[in-house]
Amino acid sequence: MVKSPGIATSITLDVLQAFCKQALTTVGVTTTDAKTTATALVTTDSWGVFTHGTKLLSGYIRRLRHGGLRTDCSPQVSVEGPAWAIVDGQSTLGQVASTFAVERAIDKARACGIAYVGVRNSCHFGAAGYYTWLAARQNMIGLAMSNDVPSVAAPGSRGAIVGSNPIAFAVPAGERDPILLDISIATVAGGKVYANMKRGEPIPDGWLIGPDGQPTNDGALYPEHASLAPMSGHKGYGIGLLIESLSGLLSGAAFTHRIGSWIFGDPSQPTDHGAAFVVIDVAAMMPFEDFAERVAMLIDEIHRAPPADNCERVMLPGEREWAHRRRAIAEGLRLPPDVAHSLEQLAQELEIGRAHV
Amino acid sequence: MVKSPGIATSITLDVLQAFCKQALTTVGVTTTDAKTTATALVTTDSWGVFTHGTKLLSGYIRRLRHGGLRTDCSPQVSVEGPAWAIVDGQSTLGQVASTFAVERAIDKARACGIAYVGVRNSCHFGAAGYYTWLAARQNMIGLAMSNDVPSVAAPGSRGAIVGSNPIAFAVPAGERDPILLDISIATVAGGKVYANMKRGEPIPDGWLIGPDGQPTNDGALYPEHASLAPMSGHKGYGIGLLIESLSGLLSGAAFTHRIGSWIFGDPSQPTDHGAAFVVIDVAAMMPFEDFAERVAMLIDEIHRAPPADNCERVMLPGEREWAHRRRAIAEGLRLPPDVAHSLEQLAQELEIGRAHV
Repeated sequence: MVKSPGIATSITLDVLQAFCKQALTTVGVTTTDAKTTATALVTTDSWGVFTHGTKLLSGYIRRLRHGGLRTDCSPQVSVEGPAWAIVDGQSTLGQVASTFAVERAIDKARACGIAYVGVRNSCHFGAAGYYTWLAARQNMIGLAMSNDVPSVAAPGSRGAIVGSNPIAFAVPAGERDPILLDISIATVAGGKVYANMKRGEPIPDGWLIGPDGQPTNDGALYPEHASLAPMSGHKGYGIGLLIESLSGLLSGAAFTHRIGSWIFGDPSQPTDHGAAFVVIDVAAMMPFEDFAERVAMLIDEIHRAPPADNCERVMLPGEREWAHRRRAIAEGLRLPPDVAHSLEQLAQELEIGRAHV
Repeated sequence: MVKSPGIATSITLDVLQAFCKQALTTVGVTTTDAKTTATALVTTDSWGVFTHGTKLLSGYIRRLRHGGLRTDCSPQVSVEGPAWAIVDGQSTLGQVASTFAVERAIDKARACGIAYVGVRNSCHFGAAGYYTWLAARQNMIGLAMSNDVPSVAAPGSRGAIVGSNPIAFAVPAGERDPILLDISIATVAGGKVYANMKRGEPIPDGWLIGPDGQPTNDGALYPEHASLAPMSGHKGYGIGLLIESLSGLLSGAAFTHRIGSWIFGDPSQPTDHGAAFVVIDVAAMMPFEDFAERVAMLIDEIHRAPPADNCERVMLPGEREWAHRRRAIAEGLRLPPDVAHSLEQLAQELEIGRAHV
């Protein structure tokens, strides 16, 4: 039906979206859920965040085929109140459970001003920032976070204590792009360690903690015998535990070592990841236009700030990503070779792609 | 009435509390507000966080005497909804406005599951962690944050872009001590720069950004011509903007350079700091005992984790502070010389203290 993205040097977002949708429906995902997931992945690619976009698709498809991710269920609200809910993801795709959850949070925030929705029985949810954007598009402030298998050390630990636990927020800014930050609580993502190793480059100080609990520059130790250093030591570790508390402990999901690895674990078993979404409806508290004007003042102030010599101007979180997305919409997306290769393989495996154009 | 704390090598929390209360009532603060403020400051000292405890009192008293902090007003709810409120601090002490606000948040969270309360027209509020503890004592998860005059650089900036913007959270743990983290978004607090300078020690890499926007080790430049480095670069900067959004932009408070400096600014003028409190009522979502058991499992798991050679065991955020507090309750508090000196001077200035025992 759609062109395999692997062979294209540049691909439109629509074509990439259609490919993802087809790949997902081919393994039994409903059209609606396939669209939800494809939109999350393609939006993430459009930001240039290729580590958390369509590159993830082949891993998800593997779990869908082996039953660890289910296609015959839908996320359900387990229990709820005026400004909160706990969602059972029912082992559906993390994007499906998380989109369902943040939409509940948006509805409840509209009624109450703020809402919390925790999710259990979910899986890897891709880029946390995507869900905060869903809130920002409704002129709401969004926060999103998720727990994960421990990969990050605590100060004074020998091994991993807490997941790299992503956290993101978006602040809507009216006509301007939202301020959007999406980070993990590790100093750097594990993917950067692999990338340096692949390029034969040394691992900089401050990235890794070795098996003795001391800093190491030996990338070959990761992930078996080394863990990621938490950002700013006890600060990143502590924020990681806040994320674990809201995503895992309060939602009733698995936490720390009880979570399944969505990549390395048995693909026939659920991972029981947890996630949390907090949404604040700005318009409940002040006219949205007034808020947007205040955000614009902040943005302008930052853009006017004197930059360092090696810097054109001081940027807002997300600014680079919005620029990337505008280019992707206008000119199509240049997929990095590893992403293109992954999608090409998937097309062959599922027997979709070039032949179906 | 009470003994001046300056002369004591060890002081009980009760005596310290009575001294603070008397100092505040002497300059016109109501008994209730004096108690609220004294409790916040003494609790912070009891944790061993002496930079944010009774040491702040003399600066607050100065503002109270000059009118920048008012004694003839009380914080008011400006506007509210089921799960949120905006509080006008009315230029009362930051501790008074913030305690009022977090108590509203606790009440609203009890009704709705979660609540947000923003504060405008406040001042420096001391230790953010104190307010999260007020929530944790009600078996709720608390978050507290505040904006401040810019002192922290952004990646690529020459000067300060965002305040050191404290953020804290507490997760209640039943019989156990709450998990409690209280941090600023700078790599290190400005106080550490001053302390190193005073001891004639060099400023380590990564603490300061010089006037050219490049890292510097010259502590003499701070704060006029250098700013603090954000923790983990764009991550700390971004979290600082989230705090600014929730504390300053959404509450209607001043933000960034519009905020008055509570130390260096005109003491007859309000500073218009903003603050934000988010409280989640655990018991709305699961039986509190079940939650506490899950937190205890996490705590035990971390305590059992193999520690590095130079470390007795992996600690939870706040663990050191709870141990300090237990000692302070049992044995009294040993005030550091700078704190004791500051209180002694205050006692003389206000003509309270030793003579009044």
